[in-house]
Amino acid sequence: MGTEFLEIIDVDDARMIIGELVDELYSRGSEVVEIGDAAGRVLAVDVESPIDLPPFDRASRDGYAVVAADTFGAGDENPVRLKCIEMVEAGSIPSLRVTEGFCTRISTGAPVPEGADAIVMVEYTEADGDDVFIYRPAYPSQHIGARGSDIKEGEILLHSGTLLSPDKVAALSAAGISSVRVISEPSVYVISTGNELIGPSETLEPGRIFDSNSAGIAAALEEAGCSVIHGGIVRDDHHELREAISRGVEEADLVITSGGTSAGTGDVLSDVLEELGEVLIHGISMKPGKPTIVGVVSGKIVIGLPGFPVAALLVFKSLIDPFLRKLSGMKASEESVKTFKLSERFHSSKGRVQYALVRVDGGYAHPIFRDSGAIASLAQADGYIEIPKNVEILHEGEDVQVFLFE
Amino acid sequence: MGTEFLEIIDVDDARMIIGELVDELYSRGSEVVEIGDAAGRVLAVDVESPIDLPPFDRASRDGYAVVAADTFGAGDENPVRLKCIEMVEAGSIPSLRVTEGFCTRISTGAPVPEGADAIVMVEYTEADGDDVFIYRPAYPSQHIGARGSDIKEGEILLHSGTLLSPDKVAALSAAGISSVRVISEPSVYVISTGNELIGPSETLEPGRIFDSNSAGIAAALEEAGCSVIHGGIVRDDHHELREAISRGVEEADLVITSGGTSAGTGDVLSDVLEELGEVLIHGISMKPGKPTIVGVVSGKIVIGLPGFPVAALLVFKSLIDPFLRKLSGMKASEESVKTFKLSERFHSSKGRVQYALVRVDGGYAHPIFRDSGAIASLAQADGYIEIPKNVEILHEGEDVQVFLFE
Repeated sequence: MGTEFLEIIDVDDARMIIGELVDELYSRGSEVVEIGDAAGRVLAVDVESPIDLPPFDRASRDGYAVVAADTFGAGDENPVRLKCIEMVEAGSIPSLRVTEGFCTRISTGAPVPEGADAIVMVEYTEADGDDVFIYRPAYPSQHIGARGSDIKEGEILLHSGTLLSPDKVAALSAAGISSVRVISEPSVYVISTGNELIGPSETLEPGRIFDSNSAGIAAALEEAGCSVIHGGIVRDDHHELREAISRGVEEADLVITSGGTSAGTGDVLSDVLEELGEVLIHGISMKPGKPTIVGVVSGKIVIGLPGFPVAALLVFKSLIDPFLRKLSGMKASEESVKTFKLSERFHSSKGRVQYALVRVDGGYAHPIFRDSGAIASLAQADGYIEIPKNVEILHEGEDVQVFLFE
Repeated sequence: MGTEFLEIIDVDDARMIIGELVDELYSRGSEVVEIGDAAGRVLAVDVESPIDLPPFDRASRDGYAVVAADTFGAGDENPVRLKCIEMVEAGSIPSLRVTEGFCTRISTGAPVPEGADAIVMVEYTEADGDDVFIYRPAYPSQHIGARGSDIKEGEILLHSGTLLSPDKVAALSAAGISSVRVISEPSVYVISTGNELIGPSETLEPGRIFDSNSAGIAAALEEAGCSVIHGGIVRDDHHELREAISRGVEEADLVITSGGTSAGTGDVLSDVLEELGEVLIHGISMKPGKPTIVGVVSGKIVIGLPGFPVAALLVFKSLIDPFLRKLSGMKASEESVKTFKLSERFHSSKGRVQYALVRVDGGYAHPIFRDSGAIASLAQADGYIEIPKNVEILHEGEDVQVFLFE
């Protein structure tokens, strides 16, 4: 087994290796979803409008459809008198052509009758039986949304890579598009490893703890635009883990396992990966997160996160999440990184990248000084900071970038 | 009918009226969800830990469980020799008590045997058959996570109002909590009104347009933490609209209708609301969005948005969304408001609040100069700016706050 020859590598090198693996092994898939399920997804293709928008010459004000030339010279003192021949509401069709001396009463959104080339707003008119006084001149095309003036049939409405926020869903709907091709969610098989772990419905026997990584990592994966297949809890056993990893690479695009905390587990995982494929990273110079393993089995990436919940989540967020977002088309959320002042001096270990959970409050980031096994720190944390490997001290009041969990 | 007496009111007054209505008519509901569905929801109650964490005195390093006093004075030159009586892995239970002169081999996560009060890391030991040399002194409690030292049974783990991000889901799971009481999603009945509107599966006949507001507003409601009941398209008809509003207030917590664009629609809605309940706002001094109507029917708020998609979305985002988020417990997303420089001079109409869609690019916000019926503007927009009523000109290069759609 070659794992003993692998050296602990820098965080940057780990990022580079994982990035290259993702580029080499994966290409984005796509799938078609109904428009009602499209919000939050990312377009996989350019979408052309199948129709002209508006689909007809449309009145954009309530008023009268006129021959513009009829109104030239109209004013408060010398209104133009036209004969109203018809009334057209939105959703109905004009039946008569407007000619010189005539007009049609029209509602916003209604089709402009043939012959008319302007709308005079109702505010500048006065009805007198079938006749209408026009008090303002109208220029040709006034208050008419010409067919295709908004978007033409065949024109690109939305580009590939667009996140379908509510406004984009509205734009697609306006073009009558009822389903769209979006980037597929990478599927991830999630396993928790450890003889001490039990599921939420089990009884807490002595020596056992509840598995928290399955649910936490699953929630983080969904945020990153992935679909989750729950592989459950696996014992620290070569055969069981081998079975689980084999099942995972068959059923999903990636496998993420975490834990356990027992001494031999890291070796069991790396042995299994060497048997089924290869280990590419075995130990990263970060705190917490050192025992992280990355391997490839049957062309799928398998990631072994540390067992302690804080460590598992921090490694996932800082190293894995950005690559999964790249695959799922979800942009890394820039808005979730904000600057705060450090509330107190913080000592870091030189020579490795250190991650620390923080609580944020009133512009300050308060480091949470608990070990990576502590659940209370997760309960209190609003995010984390990353301290470069060559930095030993962060001073009180210093600006720090906080990666927020929300 | 009293609506003719209602005056167009300021945006701030509209916000005040809507805020008071929400406070008066609604209180947050709550419901219990499984932990697997809890991510993204907001806790409705304080959650206490039902167990001590860790649930037992737990080794936080691989090594030997010892009587600390045995090791005082140990050093590289004068190691202490102890007899190893047992080996305990995570998930198993020690069967023997550790007494002076003895120790137990222990794995991270395993229960500390009775009698032992410290763990010596394996790095500072050397095995010699059943004996172990200890090269470093250990202080009492070293590398032991005492039962309840992280969180005590009955202690508050997470407070009411906490957004359940992945780290919080992990914390709940660690405490063995499999379901939680979260704030209910307010249900909203969504209607689009207009004789010209057709659904996505219908054929585009002359004079008709596809309904875009149903899907766009539904997506925006889901982002605000609401559940949507689709009421479909309703004709500009007093009877039909009355039926739809009655059904809506029966089935949902709020009703949101939009459009249509035909002249009489605003009056039809306000007439229906006067008949079934009362109209409180009929016209807001904003552009776009002036024809917005707010009423109350059977103790439920009914909102009539303008028909034009841009106007409907802007009124929803700027006036309605913040109150729905308050009800659903979702914080207004501060991260979605960012500062950009305006790319060019922008004229606003004095005396009313103006909203303009913008595209953002390289630190600049580019106003999109299209009317509020334009779908292309929605397709291009990244967000919007709000220009106060007393501002007439925004200058090129001026800082503007952009409310981002993503």
